[in-house]
Amino acid sequence: MEIISDHRIESDSIGSHQVPIEAYYGVQSLRAQENFNITGNKLHPTFIQSLAYIKKAAAVTNGAINRLDPKKSQAIIEACDEIIDGELLNEFIVDPIQGGAGTSMNMNANEVIANRANTLLQGDKGDYNLVHPNDHVNYGQSTNDVIPTAGKITAYQLCVGLQKEMVRLQETLEKKAEEFDHILKMGRTQMQDAIPIRLGQEFKAYAVAVERNCQRLDYVIQEILTINMGATAIGTGLNADSQYVQQIVPELASITGIPLVQAQDLIDGTQHIDSFSMISGVLRTFALTLSKMANDLRLISSGPKTGFNEINLPKKQNGSSIMPGKVNPVIPEVINQIAFKVAGNDTTIAMAVEAGQLELNAFEPVIFYALFESISILENGIKTFVDNCLIDITANEDRCKELLESSVGIITALVPHIGYQKGSEIANEALFTGQSVREIILKEDLLSEEELERILSPDQMTSPGICQR
Amino acid sequence: MEIISDHRIESDSIGSHQVPIEAYYGVQSLRAQENFNITGNKLHPTFIQSLAYIKKAAAVTNGAINRLDPKKSQAIIEACDEIIDGELLNEFIVDPIQGGAGTSMNMNANEVIANRANTLLQGDKGDYNLVHPNDHVNYGQSTNDVIPTAGKITAYQLCVGLQKEMVRLQETLEKKAEEFDHILKMGRTQMQDAIPIRLGQEFKAYAVAVERNCQRLDYVIQEILTINMGATAIGTGLNADSQYVQQIVPELASITGIPLVQAQDLIDGTQHIDSFSMISGVLRTFALTLSKMANDLRLISSGPKTGFNEINLPKKQNGSSIMPGKVNPVIPEVINQIAFKVAGNDTTIAMAVEAGQLELNAFEPVIFYALFESISILENGIKTFVDNCLIDITANEDRCKELLESSVGIITALVPHIGYQKGSEIANEALFTGQSVREIILKEDLLSEEELERILSPDQMTSPGICQR
Amino acid sequence: MEIISDHRIESDSIGSHQVPIEAYYGVQSLRAQENFNITGNKLHPTFIQSLAYIKKAAAVTNGAINRLDPKKSQAIIEACDEIIDGELLNEFIVDPIQGGAGTSMNMNANEVIANRANTLLQGDKGDYNLVHPNDHVNYGQSTNDVIPTAGKITAYQLCVGLQKEMVRLQETLEKKAEEFDHILKMGRTQMQDAIPIRLGQEFKAYAVAVERNCQRLDYVIQEILTINMGATAIGTGLNADSQYVQQIVPELASITGIPLVQAQDLIDGTQHIDSFSMISGVLRTFALTLSKMANDLRLISSGPKTGFNEINLPKKQNGSSIMPGKVNPVIPEVINQIAFKVAGNDTTIAMAVEAGQLELNAFEPVIFYALFESISILENGIKTFVDNCLIDITANEDRCKELLESSVGIITALVPHIGYQKGSEIANEALFTGQSVREIILKEDLLSEEELERILSPDQMTSPGICQR
Amino acid sequence: MEIISDHRIESDSIGSHQVPIEAYYGVQSLRAQENFNITGNKLHPTFIQSLAYIKKAAAVTNGAINRLDPKKSQAIIEACDEIIDGELLNEFIVDPIQGGAGTSMNMNANEVIANRANTLLQGDKGDYNLVHPNDHVNYGQSTNDVIPTAGKITAYQLCVGLQKEMVRLQETLEKKAEEFDHILKMGRTQMQDAIPIRLGQEFKAYAVAVERNCQRLDYVIQEILTINMGATAIGTGLNADSQYVQQIVPELASITGIPLVQAQDLIDGTQHIDSFSMISGVLRTFALTLSKMANDLRLISSGPKTGFNEINLPKKQNGSSIMPGKVNPVIPEVINQIAFKVAGNDTTIAMAVEAGQLELNAFEPVIFYALFESISILENGIKTFVDNCLIDITANEDRCKELLESSVGIITALVPHIGYQKGSEIANEALFTGQSVREIILKEDLLSEEELERILSPDQMTSPGICQR
Repeated sequence: MEIISDHRIESDSIGSHQVPIEAYYGVQSLRAQENFNITGNKLHPTFIQSLAYIKKAAAVTNGAINRLDPKKSQAIIEACDEIIDGELLNEFIVDPIQGGAGTSMNMNANEVIANRANTLLQGDKGDYNLVHPNDHVNYGQSTNDVIPTAGKITAYQLCVGLQKEMVRLQETLEKKAEEFDHILKMGRTQMQDAIPIRLGQEFKAYAVAVERNCQRLDYVIQEILTINMGATAIGTGLNADSQYVQQIVPELASITGIPLVQAQDLIDGTQHIDSFSMISGVLRTFALTLSKMANDLRLISSGPKTGFNEINLPKKQNGSSIMPGKVNPVIPEVINQIAFKVAGNDTTIAMAVEAGQLELNAFEPVIFYALFESISILENGIKTFVDNCLIDITANEDRCKELLESSVGIITALVPHIGYQKGSEIANEALFTGQSVREIILKEDLLSEEELERILSPDQMTSPGICQR
Repeated sequence: MEIISDHRIESDSIGSHQVPIEAYYGVQSLRAQENFNITGNKLHPTFIQSLAYIKKAAAVTNGAINRLDPKKSQAIIEACDEIIDGELLNEFIVDPIQGGAGTSMNMNANEVIANRANTLLQGDKGDYNLVHPNDHVNYGQSTNDVIPTAGKITAYQLCVGLQKEMVRLQETLEKKAEEFDHILKMGRTQMQDAIPIRLGQEFKAYAVAVERNCQRLDYVIQEILTINMGATAIGTGLNADSQYVQQIVPELASITGIPLVQAQDLIDGTQHIDSFSMISGVLRTFALTLSKMANDLRLISSGPKTGFNEINLPKKQNGSSIMPGKVNPVIPEVINQIAFKVAGNDTTIAMAVEAGQLELNAFEPVIFYALFESISILENGIKTFVDNCLIDITANEDRCKELLESSVGIITALVPHIGYQKGSEIANEALFTGQSVREIILKEDLLSEEELERILSPDQMTSPGICQR
Repeated sequence: MEIISDHRIESDSIGSHQVPIEAYYGVQSLRAQENFNITGNKLHPTFIQSLAYIKKAAAVTNGAINRLDPKKSQAIIEACDEIIDGELLNEFIVDPIQGGAGTSMNMNANEVIANRANTLLQGDKGDYNLVHPNDHVNYGQSTNDVIPTAGKITAYQLCVGLQKEMVRLQETLEKKAEEFDHILKMGRTQMQDAIPIRLGQEFKAYAVAVERNCQRLDYVIQEILTINMGATAIGTGLNADSQYVQQIVPELASITGIPLVQAQDLIDGTQHIDSFSMISGVLRTFALTLSKMANDLRLISSGPKTGFNEINLPKKQNGSSIMPGKVNPVIPEVINQIAFKVAGNDTTIAMAVEAGQLELNAFEPVIFYALFESISILENGIKTFVDNCLIDITANEDRCKELLESSVGIITALVPHIGYQKGSEIANEALFTGQSVREIILKEDLLSEEELERILSPDQMTSPGICQR
Repeated sequence: MEIISDHRIESDSIGSHQVPIEAYYGVQSLRAQENFNITGNKLHPTFIQSLAYIKKAAAVTNGAINRLDPKKSQAIIEACDEIIDGELLNEFIVDPIQGGAGTSMNMNANEVIANRANTLLQGDKGDYNLVHPNDHVNYGQSTNDVIPTAGKITAYQLCVGLQKEMVRLQETLEKKAEEFDHILKMGRTQMQDAIPIRLGQEFKAYAVAVERNCQRLDYVIQEILTINMGATAIGTGLNADSQYVQQIVPELASITGIPLVQAQDLIDGTQHIDSFSMISGVLRTFALTLSKMANDLRLISSGPKTGFNEINLPKKQNGSSIMPGKVNPVIPEVINQIAFKVAGNDTTIAMAVEAGQLELNAFEPVIFYALFESISILENGIKTFVDNCLIDITANEDRCKELLESSVGIITALVPHIGYQKGSEIANEALFTGQSVREIILKEDLLSEEELERILSPDQMTSPGICQR
């Protein structure tokens, strides 16, 4: 191996190239870095860890079936374990958006692991006679099974974090639902006064919606546990030993502790990555649900004097550089923005999923880039939503009552007794004259005070299925 | 009731309005028609039928619990049955895109049914003293439970039709997979020659992908079987009798034969319509899968002389107004367009789902308009895809073989025996000199003919998990 | 020509097919109808008219340069004129979403015109020896120049209608801006009380935003005036006479009265249809602007008792089937829905534009379907927005004043005099104690009454650039 | 000012908070960092520079009109100049996605500049009696004019970089167009053999399409040169001196060298940010155009043995970890992915633009985050597209000729002489028998050899407008 000052010379089928002498990455990582200077960002650390899990599982399996020399296998496993423990991250130099279906990510891992294994075996970096990136680290594998699998493992792990926050969100909403269960307020449809509701019922509805989204994520996560290791290049398993094909996925499941299963049809599993569209779609739907909730909170906390002002969001920072005393609903606002970003990422992912051709979809890098961001910002968003907003929301009980009593919406409760037509007339009279509905009803002798009391009792008006004649 | 020439005068809280004397619809339908002249289209017939199912179930239930006079209940039921049988469709005059959360659709149904019931009871159209649109037909209901429920029943029914076609699509693909199972061809990744595959394996992968999409649709359809009848205006069930709240959903399930269930939290069930985002998302993912398949078919049937030309699509029409003899892949092309339309509809639905506020999402009309179109065009698209394209695809077996043999892709199968580096050199030599890989291997004495035969056998190269040393 | 009962037999390169004996359309239209039963809708009438304009211009030009027999040319022109006048619309039987880059639309026009010309010349329908759909009606043309050109002419004509409504919208908003110019109210940012504004200023801002969108549409419309007639199949103009290539666009411009120009590079003009993405993008931006305006109107008209209630939208229909007296902002709500639909159509168009390949983009049918809908529903939406909502909006002047006076937002005007820190303290004190800012300032002797009057004068607070020390 | 170990204590209206003693940022930046830990990324350096430009221009202007003490003004200007020169970047600690309309970004700048100015004036960090973030650095400004303006300046500067690359892209394509102008090849529509074209014509069409996109960007950039400085909180200019309102924009234009103009209606200019939707839409259309071009290049370079193989992309890296010798079109593939990302960002931006309410759109942070990324990755993508792909493309002239001669597409050129019907028959005969079209024509004596030569000359077949009888 030639050395020039502080660089070694490595070669591949494109030619030779100087590589910093201390680098664990090699010529192919470097070429990729030069070809793809797109986002300026690095690969997600969990993705790098996932690659190491896969390389380790392959080395274990190939070692066990005597396809790989025990010494090499062991060195590869040690190198992988270091990466799994968070070392060597800086050796992953390729941009997350890259052409080539992730070959550059895969080769970056192969090169780093090979060179680390070589040094563990007292060899030199760049001297691949000992441990070779392709022939040993990548043995029985292809970018086309390694990369989608690494993407799925990463998405799974990130989703586990997200789910914990979703559960915490649901629980927080349920607690607020209990806390606010006694507070009667005006319900609004189409932003117009409708009929009474309890503030706790609103928060309970949010909690139920979050729970439903949790269940969807549970369902769709199952899809990404199905991986195509053993497929090699196009799903036909070429060059993978039959024992390896049978053992690699259980081995990987065991190493990661994740219940991974092998795709029944490895060709389908290699060329179709519609599961990423599904999981992104579920995240999108959840984000929309969150955004609606954030909009509601911003609306009913509007004010303090010229808005709805039914609840108070905790004050977390000055609201304005020019308007003193102004406090804004900054946490719900960031939830809205996260939702827009997740929806945008979903568009990206949809277009990339559609663009697959024949035996492969080469556009996984941008899918991962978008998907990992969606999961992470949702998790981060919920954290601040719960801790810096929801748990400290307080209700303006008097204001809720005052608004409710000023409205004519209770007229609806009387319709079964006086008819829709008469109801309209009284509603309009009340709005026009400023008299209360109650006063007009009594004045016109349409119902007795006792009847009114019963019909307009909070329970009667806000509890489904208790209405009786 | 005042009559002017061939019009009757009806009144509502906005004022009075002439209505054609023979019309079953009434003043509120007319106002809606005037306010919303947007698309020029009509409500989907299945949606109108769904409204009639709901109105019938309510009349049955309210009758059974003595909330509705038996004579009136019976007349309403008869009127609904007529609509269910496809009559009176022209009386539904409101535009499918409309403001007001569907109040106009609901009132159009209420008016038509009330007037039809009135005439069945020998009353006059427009004389609502007998059967009243709000007080009787709409009794115990609100737009806000009727309309989402009607949308879900409609989506369900349309999906049943779609699913039949999806199954037929899957079966067709499986048959072609068997038919083409013996045909070896070149597999391509990133449109570059990769390694061999069998044509049947490609079709099998499509079939498996369709099956997976079927399963997703099965899952997500469960969501839209959960309805909020009994919720009335905002989910608190105001004005709905407790017995009605308990019985309306089972009654509706019985009448429609659809396993509908009532939302556990009716407030959530009224304000959150994220299920429509979910079902649209699943349709979107399926459409993307179809589009990828269509792209593949267009690609491998490209030619006839200057393309891949591995398969022939059936000739269904002249391909050009200027180029004689040209035949184009018109059926796959329409599948692509359907996919783009479904993806666009999904954007519409996502934005509308996000825009709900407080106790209601008022944007269901545009959601339904987009969603019903997505389901219908997918069903129609698959019909023509199966009947006018897939079933008559033929393979150009000789061409597949010729291309495969010309390529150097088989070199990959030799890598475990000669190494990646040597493999690269031979591949380049073959491409440069035009010699076959086989010739070079033998010339260089790297492997014997017997070894080559075994390694390069079709089974060995295309069947996952049979590779052995 | 063979006749079977009431059908004639026509043949093309696919085979022979029965055609209803009275039909002007022919075998290729029929095949397309059978292949593409997708949406169930018809071609847009303006699009059919545009096709007729093109066919007429071609007949005129080919006649003038002696490429077409004068008698045939004249008959084609007459047939086209009938279609331009709105006749024969029912003879256009192909679905607007179709494979084949619009060949079926083009052939439908060619067949109808050929058969109509034949009957004008006393020939028989289906006997193409006289006037032939391809050899005469389509002479010098291809689907690939005819269809994009027809799409552009149609989009242009529809945009002219839209622009008229946009101007009317702008003028209406300006009138309301004048009408409301004297009404002081609270400005809100992030739905929190900010500083005073005049209601007229809000409407003026809407008017200016609409004007800006008009200018964008003016700009982008120029793009679709550039057409590729003369390109024939792929832009090389094969089979089009050099004189025809020079004269066809001026002729078409003359016939339509539209300032059409020929693409400088006809190959680019045939394969790249990014102009449709541009025009859709401009419509999308306009739709978003409208939706924001609709949201604002819904917000400040919220109430009547528990909302902002600063303005009243005219009552256009009952707001609820269950809640008497309720009136909803149904017109703004339909504007929101139109915006979501336009945004969805934009996604469809973007994906279709991206999907072009090599010498052609075959996905124009779905682009046109989506684009024409976007333009039409925007035009229809603005009509009802102006006529049924904006012109009759009234202001609740007292309410605006009451809210403004209750708020502490005026504190901001005092910051240059008392500092941000002191301002915060006073704002909080006012909110906490219920005292007005004015009272506290005077009590604390921070400013004199005269100073306060000057600083807090409506003009001083709401007119940019008049603030002085 | 209280000091605790290595922290100072700062206070705002939320309370007091420890700030690292050496930090130039202050309490509000810190709170924002705690509230918004969303993306983990930093503000774009160009955006930070833009903020400094604005703060400098304000200090210059306020100093010149004696609203700001000369010493303070000068210190602020110096601090800004340091930031403009790239210093203090690490003091900007807030996440780019944040609630609050960018107040946190603005306050981060105000605090850093105030503290830097304070230290320049020998004061202490955190002691705002000298230079105050709000009262001096932010004087006459609001987040609501500063932040959109900073976003526009940043977008403009990034676009200037993009435009340079676009021009280089256009020029490169034009050079290739010349280089390949003599190479005849088969044109394809709908991936089916159509009629001849020259390879250079294809590249010329790409160049023209890029040029058109350049013009669009030129147009839309004008929009973002219109800024709302002087608007302060909601466009009414409250607290901004009339002289400041007149001078701030010219001053900022002078300092930046960018031809900025002030919005005529500052209220519109503050609440409507539709210009960001426009610019994103233009970038989206350009990205789609690039993606189509990348798809074409991938298609015509497919092979090397089983694809079109008309051109060769330069080999930039190994194509596979398993398949030796494989080279993939990695650069065009990254262009596709960039296009999908830009389209996704466009969805994000559209949703955020729609979500503005009343006097402000609070969602600019996510818009900027998405928009700056779109511009940057397009610029970076084009760089590698030009340098690592386009300039080194070579043509396989023999292959182009061979394919062209094998095809029957030239039959179209004979249609004006033999008719469409006869043309179809000969095309089918040629495809079926394998004879060439030329042979059949001569055998059937339909045209003489001389006629054939003339009609089928390359110029005649590929040059618009030269066809003559």
